[in-house]
Amino acid sequence: MPRVKVIGATGYGGLGMVELLLGHPELQLTAIAAIQDVGKQLSQVWPYLVGYCDLPILSPDSPEFQDSPAEVVVAATPDGVGQVLAPRELAAGRRFLDYSGDFRFNSAELYSEYATRLGRDPRHKSADLLKESVYGLSETRRSEIATARLVGNPGCFAVSVILALAPAVREGILDLDTLVCDSKSGISGAGKKPTPAHHYPERYESMGAYRLAGHQHVMEIEEELSRLATRPVKITFTPQVVPLTRGMLSSVYGRLAPGVNQAKTLALYQEAYATSAFVRVVDSNQAVSTADVRESNRCILTVAVDERTGFFRVISHIDNLLKGQAGTALQNLNLMFGFPEKMGLDFPGSHP
Amino acid sequence: MPRVKVIGATGYGGLGMVELLLGHPELQLTAIAAIQDVGKQLSQVWPYLVGYCDLPILSPDSPEFQDSPAEVVVAATPDGVGQVLAPRELAAGRRFLDYSGDFRFNSAELYSEYATRLGRDPRHKSADLLKESVYGLSETRRSEIATARLVGNPGCFAVSVILALAPAVREGILDLDTLVCDSKSGISGAGKKPTPAHHYPERYESMGAYRLAGHQHVMEIEEELSRLATRPVKITFTPQVVPLTRGMLSSVYGRLAPGVNQAKTLALYQEAYATSAFVRVVDSNQAVSTADVRESNRCILTVAVDERTGFFRVISHIDNLLKGQAGTALQNLNLMFGFPEKMGLDFPGSHP
Amino acid sequence: MPRVKVIGATGYGGLGMVELLLGHPELQLTAIAAIQDVGKQLSQVWPYLVGYCDLPILSPDSPEFQDSPAEVVVAATPDGVGQVLAPRELAAGRRFLDYSGDFRFNSAELYSEYATRLGRDPRHKSADLLKESVYGLSETRRSEIATARLVGNPGCFAVSVILALAPAVREGILDLDTLVCDSKSGISGAGKKPTPAHHYPERYESMGAYRLAGHQHVMEIEEELSRLATRPVKITFTPQVVPLTRGMLSSVYGRLAPGVNQAKTLALYQEAYATSAFVRVVDSNQAVSTADVRESNRCILTVAVDERTGFFRVISHIDNLLKGQAGTALQNLNLMFGFPEKMGLDFPGSHP
Amino acid sequence: MPRVKVIGATGYGGLGMVELLLGHPELQLTAIAAIQDVGKQLSQVWPYLVGYCDLPILSPDSPEFQDSPAEVVVAATPDGVGQVLAPRELAAGRRFLDYSGDFRFNSAELYSEYATRLGRDPRHKSADLLKESVYGLSETRRSEIATARLVGNPGCFAVSVILALAPAVREGILDLDTLVCDSKSGISGAGKKPTPAHHYPERYESMGAYRLAGHQHVMEIEEELSRLATRPVKITFTPQVVPLTRGMLSSVYGRLAPGVNQAKTLALYQEAYATSAFVRVVDSNQAVSTADVRESNRCILTVAVDERTGFFRVISHIDNLLKGQAGTALQNLNLMFGFPEKMGLDFPGSHP
Repeated sequence: MPRVKVIGATGYGGLGMVELLLGHPELQLTAIAAIQDVGKQLSQVWPYLVGYCDLPILSPDSPEFQDSPAEVVVAATPDGVGQVLAPRELAAGRRFLDYSGDFRFNSAELYSEYATRLGRDPRHKSADLLKESVYGLSETRRSEIATARLVGNPGCFAVSVILALAPAVREGILDLDTLVCDSKSGISGAGKKPTPAHHYPERYESMGAYRLAGHQHVMEIEEELSRLATRPVKITFTPQVVPLTRGMLSSVYGRLAPGVNQAKTLALYQEAYATSAFVRVVDSNQAVSTADVRESNRCILTVAVDERTGFFRVISHIDNLLKGQAGTALQNLNLMFGFPEKMGLDFPGSHP
Repeated sequence: MPRVKVIGATGYGGLGMVELLLGHPELQLTAIAAIQDVGKQLSQVWPYLVGYCDLPILSPDSPEFQDSPAEVVVAATPDGVGQVLAPRELAAGRRFLDYSGDFRFNSAELYSEYATRLGRDPRHKSADLLKESVYGLSETRRSEIATARLVGNPGCFAVSVILALAPAVREGILDLDTLVCDSKSGISGAGKKPTPAHHYPERYESMGAYRLAGHQHVMEIEEELSRLATRPVKITFTPQVVPLTRGMLSSVYGRLAPGVNQAKTLALYQEAYATSAFVRVVDSNQAVSTADVRESNRCILTVAVDERTGFFRVISHIDNLLKGQAGTALQNLNLMFGFPEKMGLDFPGSHP
Repeated sequence: MPRVKVIGATGYGGLGMVELLLGHPELQLTAIAAIQDVGKQLSQVWPYLVGYCDLPILSPDSPEFQDSPAEVVVAATPDGVGQVLAPRELAAGRRFLDYSGDFRFNSAELYSEYATRLGRDPRHKSADLLKESVYGLSETRRSEIATARLVGNPGCFAVSVILALAPAVREGILDLDTLVCDSKSGISGAGKKPTPAHHYPERYESMGAYRLAGHQHVMEIEEELSRLATRPVKITFTPQVVPLTRGMLSSVYGRLAPGVNQAKTLALYQEAYATSAFVRVVDSNQAVSTADVRESNRCILTVAVDERTGFFRVISHIDNLLKGQAGTALQNLNLMFGFPEKMGLDFPGSHP
Repeated sequence: MPRVKVIGATGYGGLGMVELLLGHPELQLTAIAAIQDVGKQLSQVWPYLVGYCDLPILSPDSPEFQDSPAEVVVAATPDGVGQVLAPRELAAGRRFLDYSGDFRFNSAELYSEYATRLGRDPRHKSADLLKESVYGLSETRRSEIATARLVGNPGCFAVSVILALAPAVREGILDLDTLVCDSKSGISGAGKKPTPAHHYPERYESMGAYRLAGHQHVMEIEEELSRLATRPVKITFTPQVVPLTRGMLSSVYGRLAPGVNQAKTLALYQEAYATSAFVRVVDSNQAVSTADVRESNRCILTVAVDERTGFFRVISHIDNLLKGQAGTALQNLNLMFGFPEKMGLDFPGSHP
C-alpha cells in the first residue's frame, strides 16, 4: 500500500488531504509535518480528529520526517516551500505533489513572472525540475499525470475556470478576445490564518472583489487555455470573496462564433465530459447552487448561452477545498498510482 | 409637512420606507396598509417598532385608507398592485411612487413584454398613465422626477448596473455589443416570504445563479442604457444570490474603445458623478466591499479597467434595500417635494 | 444483508439516514417513501445525491412500498405517522424504528400527556404496542435495544441533556430539585419546511428562546432521568435557537451534594462513559465547541463544576442531525442487528 | 455644547460611540485617539465614515490629544489603559468614562481580585480614584451617575444579567444560593482583533462556552447584586459565544420563594422598570429574539417562571454593542450632562 507523507498538514488544505486519506482504502498516511505545533499530535490541534489521526506533527526539516519512508509526498504548503523540499524527496525516490504555484509552470521564465506578481523572489530554487513538472488538472492532463514524478496541483480558481472554458476554447466556438471570468470564492480558500478581512464580524455581511490588478491564478489559467487553443489566450478575471465557508462559483463569458447556440454548446460540453467522473454538465433550466457540490469532488457546469446577445456563458460550481484543492490532489494521486480515479472520492457530500 | 401613505408596509421594502420616514424631518407617515395582518399595529407584527410606529395596518381597499389625506402614496407592493391603485390616488390629487415594474416603462408594449417574461397578464390596467410615468433613478432623471406625478422606482439590480454603466455608455467608450453584467444579491432582495431556497439551512452555504433565461430587470436596464446611448443596447446579465442579507455587488464588463485606459475611465466617472451626493467613485487599488455601503444610501463604484485585455470593468456596491430600493425611493420623494436630496438619508451606516 | 426501508426520506432526518446507509457496509437501503414528490427520484429532489441514491420516492400508503421486503423500517416522520404505519410493518415481520414521539413512552397515559402538550389528538392509534417499545438511547438502553422490535428514537434535546445528566443522576450527586437545562439548537432541528422564523434574513442575526411554557422533549427527559434516579425528577428546561445549521449545546446545572467537587465529578463521568464509543468526557480547561462534533456521531461532555458556588455544570455538545437524530438511529440499527455499534458511524467529520 | 474626546476610537466600542455622537444633537465629538493608525483619518481606516467622521487619529499620549479641550473623555480601551489616562484628564477638569474594568470597583482590593483573574498586574495605577468612581448602569445608579466625575461603564454580560436579576434580588423573591446565569454573546463582543477562534471558517458553524473557570464579568455582577440584596450573592455563570455579530441573550434562573408565581413576578418586573426608558418587560407567551433589540439601546426581559418546578426564569435580550456598551455609555453621558436619557438613543434599529 503506497505510503503518503503530508507537509503542511495543519492548514485547511492539509487537513483536507488527511481526511481523504483516512477514507482511502489503498493509500496510507504515514507521517505529517508542519511548521507550527511541532511535537503535538494533529488531534491536539484539531480535536475532531481524536482517534482518527493522532500522528505527531514533525518538523519538515527534521530527519525524522525527511527519512520517513513513503512513495509520495504531498506539500500542502504556501508558495516557495515545495521548491526547496522537492529535490531531496525526489532524490529519495519519492513522487512529489505540490499545492502551490511552485510547480505549475514548465519554465523558469513563467515562474518568474508569476512570482513577481506575488511580490516574491522571482528565482525558482529548483528550476531544473520545472521541465518535468505536470499541471495537475486530471480532466485536461490525465495521461501525463499518471506517469508524473512531480505534479503542480492547480489553484482553486483555475480549476473552476478551466473546466468551464476548456471545451469551448478547444473547439474554437468563442471569440478568444472577449473572455470574462467572474469568480466568487468562499472564505476557506484564504486559509486558516486569521486576518482582519476574514474576522467574522467583518465578513458575515460583506462581499467584495480583490486583487483587481491581477490575481496570480490568471497566469496558469491563460497558460492552460493557450495550450488548449494552440494560440495565446488572455482573460479578464475578477476574483471575489463572499460570506460562506466552502464553495466557488465562476461565471465565464465570451462572444460566441456565429451559428453556435445553446443546444450545440450543451452537446459539446456533455460530450467533452462524458468520461469525466467528477464533471456534470446541466442545462440552464436546472437550478444549481454550490450546495450541490459541497463536501464532494464534483464540478457542475451549467451551460447558459444568452442567444439574445450571442454570448456564451457557463456557470461552474465546485467546493474550493475539494475539487478546488485536496480532492483534485487525491484524484492526481489515484492516477499516479494506477487506482480508479474515484477511489476515496466517491461520496455525495451531506446536507444540509 | 407633506404626508405619506405607504401600501405594503409590512414587507422589507415597506419597512425600509417606514424606518426612513421616522427619521425624516419634513415628511410625515400618516397611514399604512397591507394585505396581511390588517387590524394589528405595525409594531405588533414587527416588535422592534414598538413606540416608533404603532399605526394600525389598514386594508388597501378600505375607505379608511383610501380617503386618508396625503400628498404622496408609496406602493411598496409586488407587480400588478400599483397599476390598480394609482388612478384613484392620482385622481385625489396625490402623487404616486411605485416599487414594482408597473410604472417603469412608458408604453403598454414594453410593459407587455416585461409582464410576459414574468408570466403575468400582459395587459396593463392603467395603460393611459404610462406615458407620464418617470423612471425613478435620481442620478439619470433628476429633473423629470422633480415634477413627476407618477414615479416607477427602479429594481435593485437595475440601480446597481445602470449607475455602473451610465457614464461609459453615454460617452461611447465601450463596444456596446460586449456588455456583460454579473450581479450578486443578498437575500433580502427576495422579500420576507419564506421559500425553500431561502430557508436558513438551505442558504447559509450556498450561492447560485437564477433566471438565466432572462431576469425581468434586464428590460429596464436596457431601456435606460439605450436612452443614454441613443441606440439599442443589449446586455448579458447573470443574477446570482449569495448568503448575506443586505448587499449587492455588480461587476460590469465590456470591450473598451481603442485608446481608453484606466486613468481616462476613472476621470470620466469621477466627473460624471461629481455632483451626485450618493455615488462615490474610487480607484481599483482601494479595497471596497458591500460592508462599506451597508445601511447607507451610498453607491461605491470601483473603476478597474484591465489594460492587459482592453476590457472595461466597474464594480458597483450598494445596499439592495436602501440605494437599491427604499433609499432611492426617499431620494425621489425629496426631489418631488423640493427637499435637499440627502434629507433623511444622510447617515453612514453602522459597523460591524 | 438486512434491508432497510425509510419513510420520510426527503426531510433532513430521512436524508441523514439515507446518507449513513450509503456508507454502511452491512445494511442496504431498498425503498424510500415520502408524502411529497412521489414518483420522482430522490436525486431529483436533492441533486447532490445523483448517482448515489436514485431510488424512486414511493407513497407510504402504496402497496409498492408496503409490500417491499425489508428487515427494518425507519420512520423519519413527524408525530402521528409512525403509530399508524407500525402495526402493518410489524405484522409483516419487520422491526420498526420511529423518529417521533410516537413510541418514546411505554403507556398510553404518558403519550396522551405528551400529545396534549403538542396540541395533538391524545389517543394513541396503536396503544397496545407501547408496552414493548424501547427508548432508543444506546448509552442508557443498550441491551433492550438489541432485542427490540419497536424503537422510539429520542429527540435531539433529550439526547444532549440525558447524556449530560445521566451519571450524576444515577449516582445521586445532585439535589434533584435544582436541575436547570439550558439548550441551544441549530436551525436544522426545525426541519426543511420554510417558516418565517427560519427565513435567512430573519434568522442570521437572531437568537431566542421558544416554547417557554413547556417543550415536548421535557417529558422524555424527565421519564428517563426518573428511571435512572428511581424517583421522580423534574427539570427547568429552556430551548433556544441560534443561527447555525448543525449543532446543539446544552448546559445543565444543579446543586451538588456536599463534598462532591470537580475531580470526583470528572472521574465519575469518565468511568460512566468509558465503554461508550461516542461519548468523550473532557475537563473544563479544554476548549470545546460544536465544531468539534459537527458531521460526527460524537457527544463531547465538558465537566465544569463551579466549586465557588457548589454547582454542578456539564456542557454537552452534539450534532443535532447525527447524534441528535440519524446517527443515534443508525447506532440503534447496529445494536438491533448485532453489528458493532460504530459500524458506518466511524468518521471524524470534516473541517472547516 | 459639551465636547467629547474618544480614546480607542477605531475599535468596535469606539466606533459605536462615534456613530452615536454623530447623531447626538447636544454632544460634539472633537478629538479621537488610538494606538494604531495614528495620522490617518478615521474614515481612511473605516471607509463607511467618509464624509461623516474625517477627524485625524491622534496618539493618546500626544499633547495634541491631551491638551484638546473637552468636557468629557470616553476611554473605549482595554483594561489597564484608562487608569493611566484618567488622572491627567480629571486634573484638567474633564469627566471621564471608561469602558474597561478599571473603574468598575470601589476598592483596590476588589480591583486586585479582578485583575488577578485576568492574569493582569493586580496593582491599580490610580487606586485613589476608585472611591469616587461610579458603576455606570443607569437603571440601578441613575442619581449617582448624574453627578459622577468618573464612571466605569459596565461589561456587556453584566448589563444583561444585572437587569434580568435586579428586581428579583432586591425584592427577595429568590433563593440566592441557586442563581444560574447562562449567557450567549455575539462575536463582536470580542472586539475587532482577528483571532483563530473568530476567523470566519472556524466560527460560522460553532458555538461553545469559554472561561468556565471564571469570567471576569462575574465579579461586577456579584458586587452589584450583593449591593441590591444587602448580603453577599454568588452566581454560577456560563459565558458562551454563538455565531452572530450583534446580540446577547442571558437566561437567568433561581429557585423562587414559596408562593411566588409567574403573575407576581411579571408584575414586579413591570413595576420595577416602569420608568426605565430602555427596558421592556414582556410575558413568556410573546416571541422575542435578539433581532428585536438589534441596533437599538433596548433591553427586553421575558419573564418566564416555570411553575411546575418552582423556578424563576428571565430571558434578557440586548445588543451587546449598544445597551451592552456604547449605548449604555451614551446613556451615562446624557445623565452626566443633564440631557434626557434617550437623547441620541431614540431609534428603533433597522430590519432585516
